[in-house]
Amino acid sequence: MGEPSQPAIAALFELILARAPRIHCLTNTVADTFTANGLLAVGAIPSMTREVTEVGELVASSDGLLVNLGTVGSGGRDGAEQAVTVARARAVPWVLDPVFVDRSPTRATVATNLIAHGPTVLRCNAAEQLALGATPTGLVLAVTGPADRIRLGDRVQTIATGDPMMARTTATGCLASALVTAAVAVWPDPFEATVLSLAGFGQAGAVAAQQAQGPGTFPAVLLDCLARLSVL
Amino acid sequence: MGEPSQPAIAALFELILARAPRIHCLTNTVADTFTANGLLAVGAIPSMTREVTEVGELVASSDGLLVNLGTVGSGGRDGAEQAVTVARARAVPWVLDPVFVDRSPTRATVATNLIAHGPTVLRCNAAEQLALGATPTGLVLAVTGPADRIRLGDRVQTIATGDPMMARTTATGCLASALVTAAVAVWPDPFEATVLSLAGFGQAGAVAAQQAQGPGTFPAVLLDCLARLSVL
Amino acid sequence: MGEPSQPAIAALFELILARAPRIHCLTNTVADTFTANGLLAVGAIPSMTREVTEVGELVASSDGLLVNLGTVGSGGRDGAEQAVTVARARAVPWVLDPVFVDRSPTRATVATNLIAHGPTVLRCNAAEQLALGATPTGLVLAVTGPADRIRLGDRVQTIATGDPMMARTTATGCLASALVTAAVAVWPDPFEATVLSLAGFGQAGAVAAQQAQGPGTFPAVLLDCLARLSVL
Repeated sequence: MGEPSQPAIAALFELILARAPRIHCLTNTVADTFTANGLLAVGAIPSMTREVTEVGELVASSDGLLVNLGTVGSGGRDGAEQAVTVARARAVPWVLDPVFVDRSPTRATVATNLIAHGPTVLRCNAAEQLALGATPTGLVLAVTGPADRIRLGDRVQTIATGDPMMARTTATGCLASALVTAAVAVWPDPFEATVLSLAGFGQAGAVAAQQAQGPGTFPAVLLDCLARLSVL
Repeated sequence: MGEPSQPAIAALFELILARAPRIHCLTNTVADTFTANGLLAVGAIPSMTREVTEVGELVASSDGLLVNLGTVGSGGRDGAEQAVTVARARAVPWVLDPVFVDRSPTRATVATNLIAHGPTVLRCNAAEQLALGATPTGLVLAVTGPADRIRLGDRVQTIATGDPMMARTTATGCLASALVTAAVAVWPDPFEATVLSLAGFGQAGAVAAQQAQGPGTFPAVLLDCLARLSVL
Repeated sequence: MGEPSQPAIAALFELILARAPRIHCLTNTVADTFTANGLLAVGAIPSMTREVTEVGELVASSDGLLVNLGTVGSGGRDGAEQAVTVARARAVPWVLDPVFVDRSPTRATVATNLIAHGPTVLRCNAAEQLALGATPTGLVLAVTGPADRIRLGDRVQTIATGDPMMARTTATGCLASALVTAAVAVWPDPFEATVLSLAGFGQAGAVAAQQAQGPGTFPAVLLDCLARLSVL
């Protein structure tokens, strides 16, 4: 696959807007509002509960599942296991974001156990990838940073868009994972879905960094730019 | 009651600003910051703890209580029962927002049990109302959407303000419920309080949708507009 | 110490930007996103987990610890005890923010127990200070409000910057405590660090109040202004 073209990116975001996929997010409290607003900005329908007794019901009626380990507590972990089990049983694609596994061995163990359940996509940064050690096969691995590298077997793609401002705001990586989830929920090929959604996110980030007055106003402007990806 | 007049809406929001009611919110983590900022924008004083050992103390010194089931966990439910018990004992008006009961039967049961405790106002959307089945009497029922319908016995009011942008941002419904709570905390007639607060919220939303650049910048602009309702 | 000078304030924020201290925050869900974004805006690296099994690991690799009691639940309290124990063992400076102890006797007890562990700085408002009763010695006490008063033994400083708008947005006090934490993480003298960080925060708030359109847009503009403190 060559560099993602503008029409291909627009086609993905137009499909998300048209299909309005229901995305259940098990994410952390720092990221949940921004993640929900980012999904709404592109036309997806987020639900966010971490409550163990409800997660299964919500995942069962979803088109995609995001599991983010950011501030997940014991309850959230039980919820993650249950959510992943339901997602697999119903063939709901799911994305794992192993936030800060490089800072906590306990969390790295949780992540490794979840990876054994076969996520559709594993999105992380370079330090997190290192902490996880050997990369399992059969899933899309997306390592984001100044440049994003996406791999599935021998398919490899590098994306060099984005802006350093994206690292000056919390939860941009979490939102990237959420957009990948919305993408794999509607686009048949998970590798392409990951590439196109991250390319679109990077473009939105680059434009937003030009328009915002600083890191405070950047997140809202980024969502405005994301909302325009479907009408490029 | 006819269409709410501009002076009546301004009178409500001026009273909220003058009285600065203390509103305790049991809400979800996606909505809590936006809800707190929305209440502060109109001059109310929010508190937000979900901790079971503290909820009673905070409700006891509050002028209104909001119970929102968005991401409420087991602990939050225990807190909700306790909060409602204290609110009833002290005649503190309270509002129930049964978020997503249409997506989770477990949550619908929780909501039904809470409705039996007699909220002052039940605010929901059409799908949530359907999931709850028969509507109890003796409370204000506010079903919001493209048009809002408010009912108490044979008093009925429809409000047609607002903007589709309000559905492109998370927690606007939650904030609507919080504003209704602030309104019933200061305005003697709960039906009028609900009508006037939702009418003001819809007007603020319509103006904000004109001023914002997209769904990312919309929530902050909406709060700026809410802050101006008391000085129309 | 006289009124903090502009170069001294800039020197502190330049040092934060250069050192990029890792700040672990045990804070509430209303404040966590704003706190993380505020720390990122000045160049610090926040982590926010409240999970008991992970808190120790994250504090151990941090340069500063913030303990905020805003919506902290039972789990969070266990985490706070553990975090403080690790911080003391590793000589990591830590700041306590006893949010709303004036509204909840239960929480006041939690705060008193934590104060016995010797925080580097105790930041609160006047009502919270009153609820805590006698002030322990050997720590920096910062009581913020229309004017901030900072005391350590017989060293006393008053700061009169800021803007009433700062009280119309949630979590500005929480963010003040987080900035104090970043300051004591890099600046040798905790009293000076507290004075300079609160003076910078007040200046940013005064400028932001001029630039924002209302309380909704104020928080993002405040963070933009904070990001500029290091390049005054």
